Amino acid sequence: MTAEIICVGTELLLGDILNTNAQFLSRELAELGISVLHEHVIGDNPERLRELVRQACRRSDLLVFSGGLGPTEDDLTKETVAEAFGDTLHFDEEEWDKILAFFARTNRTPTPNNRKQAMVPTHGHKIPNDHGTAPGAWFEDSQGHCAVLMPGVPREMKAMWTEQVRPALQKRQNCTIHSRTLRVLGGESSIATKVAPLFESTNPTAAIYCKTGESEIRVTAREATAEAAERACNAYLQKFRDILGDAAYDVDVPALEYTVVRVLREKGLHAATAESCTGGMIAERLTNVPGSSEVFGYGFVTYAEAAKQRLLGVDAALIERYNVVSGPVAVAMAFGAARASGAELAVGITGLAGPGGALPGKPVGTVYLAGADARANTGWLLRLALGGYHERSIIRTRAALYALDLLRRMALGLPVPDGMAVTPQTPPEESNI
Amino acid sequence: MTAEIICVGTELLLGDILNTNAQFLSRELAELGISVLHEHVIGDNPERLRELVRQACRRSDLLVFSGGLGPTEDDLTKETVAEAFGDTLHFDEEEWDKILAFFARTNRTPTPNNRKQAMVPTHGHKIPNDHGTAPGAWFEDSQGHCAVLMPGVPREMKAMWTEQVRPALQKRQNCTIHSRTLRVLGGESSIATKVAPLFESTNPTAAIYCKTGESEIRVTAREATAEAAERACNAYLQKFRDILGDAAYDVDVPALEYTVVRVLREKGLHAATAESCTGGMIAERLTNVPGSSEVFGYGFVTYAEAAKQRLLGVDAALIERYNVVSGPVAVAMAFGAARASGAELAVGITGLAGPGGALPGKPVGTVYLAGADARANTGWLLRLALGGYHERSIIRTRAALYALDLLRRMALGLPVPDGMAVTPQTPPEESNI
Repeated sequence: MTAEIICVGTELLLGDILNTNAQFLSRELAELGISVLHEHVIGDNPERLRELVRQACRRSDLLVFSGGLGPTEDDLTKETVAEAFGDTLHFDEEEWDKILAFFARTNRTPTPNNRKQAMVPTHGHKIPNDHGTAPGAWFEDSQGHCAVLMPGVPREMKAMWTEQVRPALQKRQNCTIHSRTLRVLGGESSIATKVAPLFESTNPTAAIYCKTGESEIRVTAREATAEAAERACNAYLQKFRDILGDAAYDVDVPALEYTVVRVLREKGLHAATAESCTGGMIAERLTNVPGSSEVFGYGFVTYAEAAKQRLLGVDAALIERYNVVSGPVAVAMAFGAARASGAELAVGITGLAGPGGALPGKPVGTVYLAGADARANTGWLLRLALGGYHERSIIRTRAALYALDLLRRMALGLPVPDGMAVTPQTPPEESNI
Repeated sequence: MTAEIICVGTELLLGDILNTNAQFLSRELAELGISVLHEHVIGDNPERLRELVRQACRRSDLLVFSGGLGPTEDDLTKETVAEAFGDTLHFDEEEWDKILAFFARTNRTPTPNNRKQAMVPTHGHKIPNDHGTAPGAWFEDSQGHCAVLMPGVPREMKAMWTEQVRPALQKRQNCTIHSRTLRVLGGESSIATKVAPLFESTNPTAAIYCKTGESEIRVTAREATAEAAERACNAYLQKFRDILGDAAYDVDVPALEYTVVRVLREKGLHAATAESCTGGMIAERLTNVPGSSEVFGYGFVTYAEAAKQRLLGVDAALIERYNVVSGPVAVAMAFGAARASGAELAVGITGLAGPGGALPGKPVGTVYLAGADARANTGWLLRLALGGYHERSIIRTRAALYALDLLRRMALGLPVPDGMAVTPQTPPEESNI
């Protein structure tokens, strides 16, 4: 099956909003095994829309629309597609009642134009919208071409797609699909070279999406039954895990901090943070996880040298001797945070996020990350080289990601790649790291 | 002039990447007064591309391409457009030398396919690429239609656009443009109703872009000379400022924290943060501004009750009496942070970010924000109702924005809307706020 995605809206043509709907629908259609040939954005112009629908119908089996279902007179998408598919629209009392109820709930008054939104296909069918006012519409012509019209508001569109359109298309594709997303630390190029052949499969499929310092690998299996799809998906996912090892940190989680909070909770551990260059980002990420208060109580943002001394007990002489951006200071910060908070695990981080401030032998992007394990009075020190990117926010984001990963590794007893074992009593010599 | 944007790339059709190029080009063309009729995404399929170019040329004066200039055999965009515009390509020694030098610098070896990238238009002209290997191409047919081909990598495309394509189009449009972006606190609906008529102007134009808790208003003037455009732009911007007052906090800054850091620096002041529900977000935002160490040294993430007591000196009896999520605790946190850090200004914030944890009379989204001004031993307390959104990260982001704005207002001596004046000695009664 082939498809085209058509997003309707002048605000898209003006660049007022970013078209995230097109990406969402592209991914979803790819997962269903439907080839997208062309994506379009057009305004509310019935003539151009008519011409586009006529052409797209000739090329493709399925047209997926988002937007153009609003109440204003400009919004003629439904009327135009109905005409192109030889269908008509009629007024649907049930939808109108839902629209009236929606306006009553939000203390607003519908305009006569809102009646347009209650018009539904006569030969095709409406698609109920449980998350907004405008129902969607499904048209079908005599040659089996379909057009699916959904709202433009991303929240409403995604809900309608997931709850109603996708299951209907799956049935037509005569399969069920199962997807899972593996999250992996490391850049796309380093990951992709290790697992390149796994991306060549057509079922299950695998796609990689890059984020800062990590990647998502989405595996999708299409099978006749839900059980078979799930089994095939999990088996294929395992192939990635076998190759990627503990860099593959979790499945179907929004971000690394969710894994860290879960692991800490499972192990009955607490974490504290002492941040200089990341300025609170590690704490912010941990506390964005609901329920994180069970495992995180204290975060120290010690941006000034005096703050490192007063809040974490970092010795002024240590700073004087090694510089504030140094391994010994990171170690002292981490153990100081563990001491001041009573947490079993803590991280300390100091570095040069730029743009200015490079030191001899320490270019922008140099970050010292230490982890303290108060249970054994030992820890880890890493020297990270995150420059080359040169952008302050990216250096900080990558540094925070390493810190979260260090907490995960200490909690799980995993090896710390390129990490140097340390204790609070003996500051490591700079030359060793 | 009318235009179409054509993004070439299978990875876009698969949803592997988000199409930010289309939004960038849409905004830029709108600013130049060029109407975008249609945006397309297509794969590397010469037949479909040829058909599209043929149609788009009939409809529009200008075709703006991104992507399809890569070295692989699939990348036939340049060849296809050349043919459609009755042009040919020839090998350009200078471009080839640049490509060879680029490979040498990055320790890689070019493939024979890379020679394709050195092919440039014969009647049209090449567009040098100072940020990557592939030059762009400019084609023009006998009827004055143009096609501009740029790389797909956003960084390379944006640089080529800004440095070369945009100035050339401006010359054709026979005007210069000047844009400025006003940043305003408050949601789009509340702002838009106040300044709605100002968005109707066609020159200068104004467009509003919503962010969480704030909006950007971009004003663009087109005039014959640069001075006239700048003058018209600034005059129109002032109309917005006159209506929006001090909610309009700055012009041409990336975010509120940049304004806060600038204002603190100008006033010779320092700020400290004591965060519970925002978990470090305020500190993280402040420290993302280069040079923020001049004005910010101490951030306390006191997620646990014990942390509020130990680090900020919040009285356990106060927490017992009022609850940890309360105005008196926020006030004690703010003054505690000022005391512990020595900063002149501090904010304290405690609230319910959800999803669970609602208290009687305090639904999810209830946030107490206090500001301490140690110079006068007075401050402000606000009770924010950020629920209704129900999403933890949005509640936190909006709360942090209010906190940053409170720092700005205290530093500038601006009124604090809905704020209640407080002192550290007399905890406010809960019933008053």
